[in-house]
Amino acid sequence: MKVKMFKEVEGLDLQKGLEVKAYIDTLTKPPGSLGRLEELAVQLGEITRVSFPKVTPPGIIVFAADHGVAKEGVSAFPQEVTQQMVYNFVNGGAAINVFAEQIGAQFSICDIGVAAPIESNQVVDENVRRGTGNFAKEDAMTKVEAEKALRVGYRLAEEMIHEQGIQCLILGEMGIGNTTTSSAILAVLSEKPVSELIGIGTGIESDKLKLKQKVIEDAIQARNPDKNDPLDILAKVGGLEIAGMAGAMLAAAANRIPILVDGFICTVAALIANELDGEAKDYMIVGHKSVEPGHETAINMLGKLPLLDLGMRLGEGSGAAVAFPILQSASLMLKNMATFDSAGISNKE
Amino acid sequence: MKVKMFKEVEGLDLQKGLEVKAYIDTLTKPPGSLGRLEELAVQLGEITRVSFPKVTPPGIIVFAADHGVAKEGVSAFPQEVTQQMVYNFVNGGAAINVFAEQIGAQFSICDIGVAAPIESNQVVDENVRRGTGNFAKEDAMTKVEAEKALRVGYRLAEEMIHEQGIQCLILGEMGIGNTTTSSAILAVLSEKPVSELIGIGTGIESDKLKLKQKVIEDAIQARNPDKNDPLDILAKVGGLEIAGMAGAMLAAAANRIPILVDGFICTVAALIANELDGEAKDYMIVGHKSVEPGHETAINMLGKLPLLDLGMRLGEGSGAAVAFPILQSASLMLKNMATFDSAGISNKE
Repeated sequence: MKVKMFKEVEGLDLQKGLEVKAYIDTLTKPPGSLGRLEELAVQLGEITRVSFPKVTPPGIIVFAADHGVAKEGVSAFPQEVTQQMVYNFVNGGAAINVFAEQIGAQFSICDIGVAAPIESNQVVDENVRRGTGNFAKEDAMTKVEAEKALRVGYRLAEEMIHEQGIQCLILGEMGIGNTTTSSAILAVLSEKPVSELIGIGTGIESDKLKLKQKVIEDAIQARNPDKNDPLDILAKVGGLEIAGMAGAMLAAAANRIPILVDGFICTVAALIANELDGEAKDYMIVGHKSVEPGHETAINMLGKLPLLDLGMRLGEGSGAAVAFPILQSASLMLKNMATFDSAGISNKE
Repeated sequence: MKVKMFKEVEGLDLQKGLEVKAYIDTLTKPPGSLGRLEELAVQLGEITRVSFPKVTPPGIIVFAADHGVAKEGVSAFPQEVTQQMVYNFVNGGAAINVFAEQIGAQFSICDIGVAAPIESNQVVDENVRRGTGNFAKEDAMTKVEAEKALRVGYRLAEEMIHEQGIQCLILGEMGIGNTTTSSAILAVLSEKPVSELIGIGTGIESDKLKLKQKVIEDAIQARNPDKNDPLDILAKVGGLEIAGMAGAMLAAAANRIPILVDGFICTVAALIANELDGEAKDYMIVGHKSVEPGHETAINMLGKLPLLDLGMRLGEGSGAAVAFPILQSASLMLKNMATFDSAGISNKE
């Protein structure tokens, strides 16, 4: 049962893609020699319907929320770190702040479900509930709450697109325990064994890893989420920041804005978005491959090839932000390179 | 027989690397979670001896030269394209111009051996000879010419370092026929079969690929370069732009400036530089993995792991320039992230 909550995502403009491809072959370089930059430029054309698509400025929205399942001891860090890291985002000290500044991104932080109160007028207060329920013992949230979180993400992304004119959307997250939540969602969607999908997250030891596996396995059995109902999955074993990111992606896709997907948690949100609208994945580019073992499965389910593989596993949108300049290179190649004709260069013999 | 032509390259500052590593572990992120960015930051510390190493502005020198062996029909493009592309560099229409502007690089073009005259005051005229000899029939150049080309590269890099204050060096090349030359050099250095080291270059068909293989095999047999004498290799089957790049790398290493290595041809130049001074490779970071089959062998001989693998095979320094923002991310992470203490964040439980 797919829910049509939002404006339908349109298909890619394949004709524009063909035009862009033909134009790329007139640029002063051997055909195909810029590899994936050329493919990215074609995809940007298909997404934006523009002959010379821009990707700047990018926009980054970081959604923060807590996870009741953190009480089971599945994380290396205490839950209070979610709130503390939100303040770190506000003060500009986190990795995503540094990379956001590097790429000239519009930047927004949203409290969509942090357990502790956030006192800062620089954080968008859209707290749906003060952390999810511990899905080892109860549903993470109600379907109404899941839908509300999706709508928050959708609205924030639309605002950034329409008011700040962003040309590419990056989503980040902060939430102690959210690799556990993401692994649970992915186990439901992929039907793969939990043991293949879990990893150390922020850095747990092997005994905690076994606990993490058991908590997820037991929760899926107890909650029994409906694989074909993304709202049910979110409600039973999901997270508020994951719902927010999925909603934001649907807004970007509906507005023909490319989505640069980050690591494990973000890619699981991308899968949820794609469950809600099967065209959404065409608007996505996966920025990097995380060390988190489940990420490869999630990327494969989206049918994508990541741009970077740098052994990162931080989240916050950091991998996507580090990958962003590659997208910019693709856009600038298209816009600024000379053609064989304009440069008076002999073509292949 | 190693020739000590230049100031000896000093060893890395491993102590500074340890200091940087310890500092990284105080930053507000799980230890190790930024993967290769952390390793890069450590290497930058070891190279520069600075606690917060900068990489901007980067500098790019593109060396252009012709290859007598192009007369054997080993390239998809006619030799006149070398000259035409130099003018394209001058006019800002090539891929490397676009990426140089994107990363805010100092940019310089050097005619180190183009066959046709270059009439532009924007090109550094250091023409050692108007193209190499066709090594299918004669030595590519004399040892004196090889040494001269090395010194040109060394001097230009030193000027960019001392006069323009570049903090990272990228070398590019243009020279129709230069994957053939690079494959020949690599075959000598690696002692691997030529068939494993050659590729389509700018895009030749399979019959030309067989010709390319035979030309290289015959030339190595006829010229018989001394594997242990890099000057002899350059003289017998080398290229002037390759010598220039190798010289420039030695200057960067001697001045403790990181070298961001580009694709196949540039990595072969890096191997020559490393033959001339065995510490040089410690100052290198490989920007990307080219599609050209020999590149993997060359990268492995340097003992490196490339940052990007985007199916590129253009040369000009383009892959390194596209990879540069990753180096910048590593530098900015170190400089701008908050520490657990400064941000008041709880560390691991």
